[in-house]
Amino acid sequence: MKKAWGGRFKEKTASVVESFTESISFDYRLWPYDIQGSIAHARMLARQGIITKQEARQIIDGLKDIAKDIEAGRFKWKKEHEDVHMNIEAELIKRIGPVGGKLHTARSRNDQVALDLRLYLREEIKEILKFIKKLQRIFLRLADRYHNTAMPGYTHLQRAQPVTIGQHMLAYVEMLNRDAERLEDCLKRTDSLPLGACALAGTTLPIDRAYVAELLKFRRISTNSMDAVSDRDFVVEFISSASILMMHLSRLAEELILWSSEEFGFIELPDSFCTGSSIMPQKKNPDVAELIRGKTGRVYGNLIALLTLMKALPLSYNRDMQEDKPPLFDTVDTVKACLEVLTEMMPKVKFNKTHTEAASTGGYSLATDLAEYLVKKGVPFRQAHEITGRIVRYAIEQHKQLNELTLEELKTFSDKIGTDIKGLFELRPALSKRVSLGSTSPEEVKRQIALWRERLK
Amino acid sequence: MKKAWGGRFKEKTASVVESFTESISFDYRLWPYDIQGSIAHARMLARQGIITKQEARQIIDGLKDIAKDIEAGRFKWKKEHEDVHMNIEAELIKRIGPVGGKLHTARSRNDQVALDLRLYLREEIKEILKFIKKLQRIFLRLADRYHNTAMPGYTHLQRAQPVTIGQHMLAYVEMLNRDAERLEDCLKRTDSLPLGACALAGTTLPIDRAYVAELLKFRRISTNSMDAVSDRDFVVEFISSASILMMHLSRLAEELILWSSEEFGFIELPDSFCTGSSIMPQKKNPDVAELIRGKTGRVYGNLIALLTLMKALPLSYNRDMQEDKPPLFDTVDTVKACLEVLTEMMPKVKFNKTHTEAASTGGYSLATDLAEYLVKKGVPFRQAHEITGRIVRYAIEQHKQLNELTLEELKTFSDKIGTDIKGLFELRPALSKRVSLGSTSPEEVKRQIALWRERLK
Amino acid sequence: MKKAWGGRFKEKTASVVESFTESISFDYRLWPYDIQGSIAHARMLARQGIITKQEARQIIDGLKDIAKDIEAGRFKWKKEHEDVHMNIEAELIKRIGPVGGKLHTARSRNDQVALDLRLYLREEIKEILKFIKKLQRIFLRLADRYHNTAMPGYTHLQRAQPVTIGQHMLAYVEMLNRDAERLEDCLKRTDSLPLGACALAGTTLPIDRAYVAELLKFRRISTNSMDAVSDRDFVVEFISSASILMMHLSRLAEELILWSSEEFGFIELPDSFCTGSSIMPQKKNPDVAELIRGKTGRVYGNLIALLTLMKALPLSYNRDMQEDKPPLFDTVDTVKACLEVLTEMMPKVKFNKTHTEAASTGGYSLATDLAEYLVKKGVPFRQAHEITGRIVRYAIEQHKQLNELTLEELKTFSDKIGTDIKGLFELRPALSKRVSLGSTSPEEVKRQIALWRERLK
Amino acid sequence: MKKAWGGRFKEKTASVVESFTESISFDYRLWPYDIQGSIAHARMLARQGIITKQEARQIIDGLKDIAKDIEAGRFKWKKEHEDVHMNIEAELIKRIGPVGGKLHTARSRNDQVALDLRLYLREEIKEILKFIKKLQRIFLRLADRYHNTAMPGYTHLQRAQPVTIGQHMLAYVEMLNRDAERLEDCLKRTDSLPLGACALAGTTLPIDRAYVAELLKFRRISTNSMDAVSDRDFVVEFISSASILMMHLSRLAEELILWSSEEFGFIELPDSFCTGSSIMPQKKNPDVAELIRGKTGRVYGNLIALLTLMKALPLSYNRDMQEDKPPLFDTVDTVKACLEVLTEMMPKVKFNKTHTEAASTGGYSLATDLAEYLVKKGVPFRQAHEITGRIVRYAIEQHKQLNELTLEELKTFSDKIGTDIKGLFELRPALSKRVSLGSTSPEEVKRQIALWRERLK
Repeated sequence: MKKAWGGRFKEKTASVVESFTESISFDYRLWPYDIQGSIAHARMLARQGIITKQEARQIIDGLKDIAKDIEAGRFKWKKEHEDVHMNIEAELIKRIGPVGGKLHTARSRNDQVALDLRLYLREEIKEILKFIKKLQRIFLRLADRYHNTAMPGYTHLQRAQPVTIGQHMLAYVEMLNRDAERLEDCLKRTDSLPLGACALAGTTLPIDRAYVAELLKFRRISTNSMDAVSDRDFVVEFISSASILMMHLSRLAEELILWSSEEFGFIELPDSFCTGSSIMPQKKNPDVAELIRGKTGRVYGNLIALLTLMKALPLSYNRDMQEDKPPLFDTVDTVKACLEVLTEMMPKVKFNKTHTEAASTGGYSLATDLAEYLVKKGVPFRQAHEITGRIVRYAIEQHKQLNELTLEELKTFSDKIGTDIKGLFELRPALSKRVSLGSTSPEEVKRQIALWRERLK
Repeated sequence: MKKAWGGRFKEKTASVVESFTESISFDYRLWPYDIQGSIAHARMLARQGIITKQEARQIIDGLKDIAKDIEAGRFKWKKEHEDVHMNIEAELIKRIGPVGGKLHTARSRNDQVALDLRLYLREEIKEILKFIKKLQRIFLRLADRYHNTAMPGYTHLQRAQPVTIGQHMLAYVEMLNRDAERLEDCLKRTDSLPLGACALAGTTLPIDRAYVAELLKFRRISTNSMDAVSDRDFVVEFISSASILMMHLSRLAEELILWSSEEFGFIELPDSFCTGSSIMPQKKNPDVAELIRGKTGRVYGNLIALLTLMKALPLSYNRDMQEDKPPLFDTVDTVKACLEVLTEMMPKVKFNKTHTEAASTGGYSLATDLAEYLVKKGVPFRQAHEITGRIVRYAIEQHKQLNELTLEELKTFSDKIGTDIKGLFELRPALSKRVSLGSTSPEEVKRQIALWRERLK
Repeated sequence: MKKAWGGRFKEKTASVVESFTESISFDYRLWPYDIQGSIAHARMLARQGIITKQEARQIIDGLKDIAKDIEAGRFKWKKEHEDVHMNIEAELIKRIGPVGGKLHTARSRNDQVALDLRLYLREEIKEILKFIKKLQRIFLRLADRYHNTAMPGYTHLQRAQPVTIGQHMLAYVEMLNRDAERLEDCLKRTDSLPLGACALAGTTLPIDRAYVAELLKFRRISTNSMDAVSDRDFVVEFISSASILMMHLSRLAEELILWSSEEFGFIELPDSFCTGSSIMPQKKNPDVAELIRGKTGRVYGNLIALLTLMKALPLSYNRDMQEDKPPLFDTVDTVKACLEVLTEMMPKVKFNKTHTEAASTGGYSLATDLAEYLVKKGVPFRQAHEITGRIVRYAIEQHKQLNELTLEELKTFSDKIGTDIKGLFELRPALSKRVSLGSTSPEEVKRQIALWRERLK
Repeated sequence: MKKAWGGRFKEKTASVVESFTESISFDYRLWPYDIQGSIAHARMLARQGIITKQEARQIIDGLKDIAKDIEAGRFKWKKEHEDVHMNIEAELIKRIGPVGGKLHTARSRNDQVALDLRLYLREEIKEILKFIKKLQRIFLRLADRYHNTAMPGYTHLQRAQPVTIGQHMLAYVEMLNRDAERLEDCLKRTDSLPLGACALAGTTLPIDRAYVAELLKFRRISTNSMDAVSDRDFVVEFISSASILMMHLSRLAEELILWSSEEFGFIELPDSFCTGSSIMPQKKNPDVAELIRGKTGRVYGNLIALLTLMKALPLSYNRDMQEDKPPLFDTVDTVKACLEVLTEMMPKVKFNKTHTEAASTGGYSLATDLAEYLVKKGVPFRQAHEITGRIVRYAIEQHKQLNELTLEELKTFSDKIGTDIKGLFELRPALSKRVSLGSTSPEEVKRQIALWRERLK
């Protein structure tokens, strides 16, 4: 088959090269953006008198017809046409004749693919933002449901202090919010029109880039044609934001896995979100969480693929950049799938309040309250900490919990301890006593929930 | 030596563990932020009546004395004190007695280290932003100096079309501008107060976080204590922004290396920025550019180190997170060193105009102009491209450049070609004919320079 | 649809979970190994009397039938059956009835998938080794063809000393040889039978693992059942070997790109291995080399995906490990495609001897010979280097090459220089004078070629 | 200060460049190898008559003196001398006069640094192999101590089947063994002499590389001078082997963290290997394990740093390669520190047998035994699995363990169940019934321990 750029060539492309260099097997999914961009381009060409209104009409109608066929699954993508752009252009020319050959005026695949990618990613980022917001609202509902339920708070996976499940859920709202912010920031930089840069140097034809930007609703116009075709920052930035998002989801996944183990027993996952074993009949596995955790590596890998790819490439376009698409597409798909499955699963996660509250008081996790009790009596914190440490050690040796120590026993460690110590080791008052901004107390959690509700409206 | 947290422990720390877990050998550099944060904390504790004004005074004076000693190189950091926080606190208590033990009231190392890191990074990002701006201004001056000088523009490292060196320099201004934007966005999220989160759950003491935020000039307050001590997003985001920046610098480095090769011969690097060979007396190597290119891997590696580290960590603080510092510090140092050396070297880079302009017309790089000439005569672009391709092939076979073909020869390919073709293959008019927004023409470059001058004021 | 493990479950799997957790869309390609393994397993079960010979016959015939249908493209993979193992087993039971349910005796998907992966990778490594050997032989032929042709040898991309193209080609033979060695080493560790580990703890049934190993021609048997199902080292090791291989190919790709630029002009790539531009009619781009360079990032990314995935997974099998396949398959495909296209392209690469030899003497690249000349006259090398450096500087200032300096001029730098200096700066003798083992002289290259011919037989 | 290569240069190196390009701040640690290599080189030069025996003596004595001074901490490394090679050479010349300048005859820093790195890494790999063997022996002793103690075996972090702690410990012996094998394989390729390649092309002087190889005990000689100075495969391969090793240690670390949580309660870590909290007096944290887990990212990052660095570098030496040292050194240090601390800590880890055995029977973890019981009665496995699954579900609903079901209850699910089911759910017999090669039974574990003892002698 004759290549669109074949004029200068004597030999035809080797078939191994055709297979090796084609991108249609994966870039076909850019077709809606390719057609959308081409229509805007044709309208501009006509408006500028570079082609006639009549020609533009033919081209646009042809493109719309093609779009319909693609949508209906009737379109046959061909490897010989290399990529989505050439497949569509070749078909257009086949359908409407040589006038179709006018579409590529004042345009190169270099700026065209940059345009398609930006249109695609702009839409996908918006989709992902919707999923994030949805998931935040789910965590908000969980926070509300469990705002007054205690669970152990951990540092180093050792019980540290009791926290409310509500606050723990809100921590994920915060993380997701930073993810959304980062994606919004990335969107600003993605939302810039590269078309009109042509191959790399602009064109001698009197195009109107501002009009194309208006048609395609771009906030910005890439103002340096060399940069416009060389730039894949928006892809790297997106994947790095996605990597942080996946890192957050991997932390959540890890917690779900831990919490649903027999040892923790904090949550029950719905049967419909677990799978079994082909050999062990009793198994009920938290596969969804495990797969999310595993897919984190995939997105990190995509980030490295892109960063490596772009390293030390001289300006402007280099063919290496064709390899930007598989990691980008895979990242978009992975992130969306993980968010989607979580929005389905999380509402069905049930916390076992009996277990979480029983565990909250174990492990001497109110020892800090004792230290702060002493501080309020005037003991310097460092000494209060030392005294409390010795009390804990004593309690361990006596196989007692802190609330099982008598006042007499306690007093041997510090005469500042008095009868007002009573109740210090009771869970619910202890939670409520955490008065600082952003603390774990049910009251503060309630306040935060109200604020988030407002923000996520 | 007694550990501050030793109350509960029966055995002392094994010496291999002391070495393995210490962080003072690298986190000592956080000391100015640690002291700054402690002073603000002490002022707040006094204001809230948790300690007396007199105690606060003693603590603050003690801290300032310590700061002076550290600055003067008189302070001895000790491994037994594990980290920068404990080294300073232990010294404080040694100097001012048990009252020093009151400083750690309503604070944990978990929120303290998060505070120090944020203060540190906030300052370093600002430093880096200054370097970026400085480098942008240098590229702007180069753009101005060479706004009307041609060089070959490349795609696939093949000569594509002539461009102005001015525009090429502006491409780096654009890239650096996106880097600056990303760092500004990261700064927003870095600039948030974690102190007051304490270990993970807040405190029962009546602290005032807003006041601390005011003292330390934080834009935001981290509003979930669990998240506040678990969050290292700002570190990952910074390193990912730095990775993109290094990717840009690696592209520049690659170009400098290519351009200073005998084969390209486009630029001359100053002797003072090159080094020689221990064996080959004639060598003059572009080491600075090579090292920048090489250091790109280092920053990518730091990004992966952090992302891997954070993967699947359950909330809240885990000791793994101590390992966030070496990659962060190394990234800051690397980025600053690369930017600094470039701000020194780039002003001294001299383009060899004779070479770059001679090369600009070679390689049939004005063939696109011929195609666009035909378009203006009404030939559909796709056919114009085909005709021009055949002309190029003919010229190659005749060992001629395009401007060496006679009108007769040209006419055999298309009768649309007329006498007005004269001058089409002359470099300077060709450049100026690129009229589109953001194109490479000297006039457009001048316009862009003016805009950037305004923006970078 | 009823799941094979559904006995214990009350709710059926949510459809979003079915999509999220299925692997059949990518692991279907393991089917030949799955069936091969199942046949061996069935034979062993019969031999041990766990099933009857008759049952084994039915199972094996059923499996062979299924294999035929898959091969013929008649088999329908179903998402509800999750993965390749369950798809085949379900079909088997459908075809031969409940006796098909005996196949999974003393086996779990945990050891089954480990088996399939090892069988798959064992075969693919062997394939890749063949490609490597083929490519080595091509480089060997190129080395032979150009064993006496000079080109500039570079350090820091500056001309350093002339080398023979033959030696340069042999450098790639060496690199590829290390790649082959690494893959052979990886093969040793891949070639180990995991089957019989069952879920993780072995089985109470009297299986014979040695017999299965014999049937499937495994060199080793994994001797710890927990490790056998937890271990993906062989996948990581393979991808890391593949990463080094791709790194080598990226270096070759970079050189091909440089050499085919107008500036270097060292090689001509065949038209059939280049592609053109959609806008610039004169372009002929080294796309194959660029894509290989770009695909390097892809393989590095796959390595990080796997390493991240496996980080901190507790023993034994975790569902995360299902995500090992996409990066593994992609690496195998990428490496094979790159090697294949190179074996087609490299024989057609033509060096432009006139250019390479002209360039070889430029850039003062025989200065080291002058220094070594002085050394032979008794001047300490460090002084000889200094003297030569000054001569080079003088020559540059005089706009002369070294061989254009008169004896008088030379003598002003050192009186050790005599008439025997004549001929020192002639290219061909200079090459032959490099006498050390492994040096660039045509004679040594010839000797190395002979050795490699022997080794690659 | 005058540079050794300064002859050709008019300007002196800018001070910012001196700082940016120096490597002495980290490569000084190569000094023992640099001196060892120089001594061998000098002996060879004398043997070949390139320098006199007397000169060689002076040089060697000078080098030994310098070594003594370095060892004693009396040597001052200078940035102006750039790197370890030039620092030592400059000092040598200072001490013994111009004859010192003869040492660098027929040598370049390009082959010299490759030599130093290989000598360094060869020694460090051997060190690491010793640590690995030591750690394997410790796991072997733990395996022996606990060969008959049960703990739950997990898949998906859900209790799957009981295993012996002995087998679990042996799994780490297996993993470490593969690590050792990989490092041995890497050692083969590291152990190759590059010296004599000189800058890149060999030399005109009559050196004897084989003699140098003999003196320095190299197994191989790098037989292509261009490759010899371009090759950093051995560094990448080492770091990738180290990454897999760290991945293994991260899995161990994760398990130690889980097991020492209150929820699991399987092990007690010695106080001397834990640290406390600055705020929570009761905390005892598994910091060592957490840091090992965290340091995994660091080594992965180093791998990416190197792979990125080497990507697309044209042959032969490029200055980028100076950046190979920080990630290599950091990897060596990190791996050794992690292995060392584990060899100290692991012998002190105590399993809480009461807890691990109690947990082993929970979670219906002997359900597979019931399915295999039915298989032995002729029920096809798939049906047996289904029946058992229904029994488990019934038991869960009845809040019973499997061994609490009556024979009558069991029989309602299958009439194949008879009185011989008695004892099926007893832990110790269940373990011993696992008869397959490599299974978890105490008997098989004992057999494996004996085999490993032999192998690790």
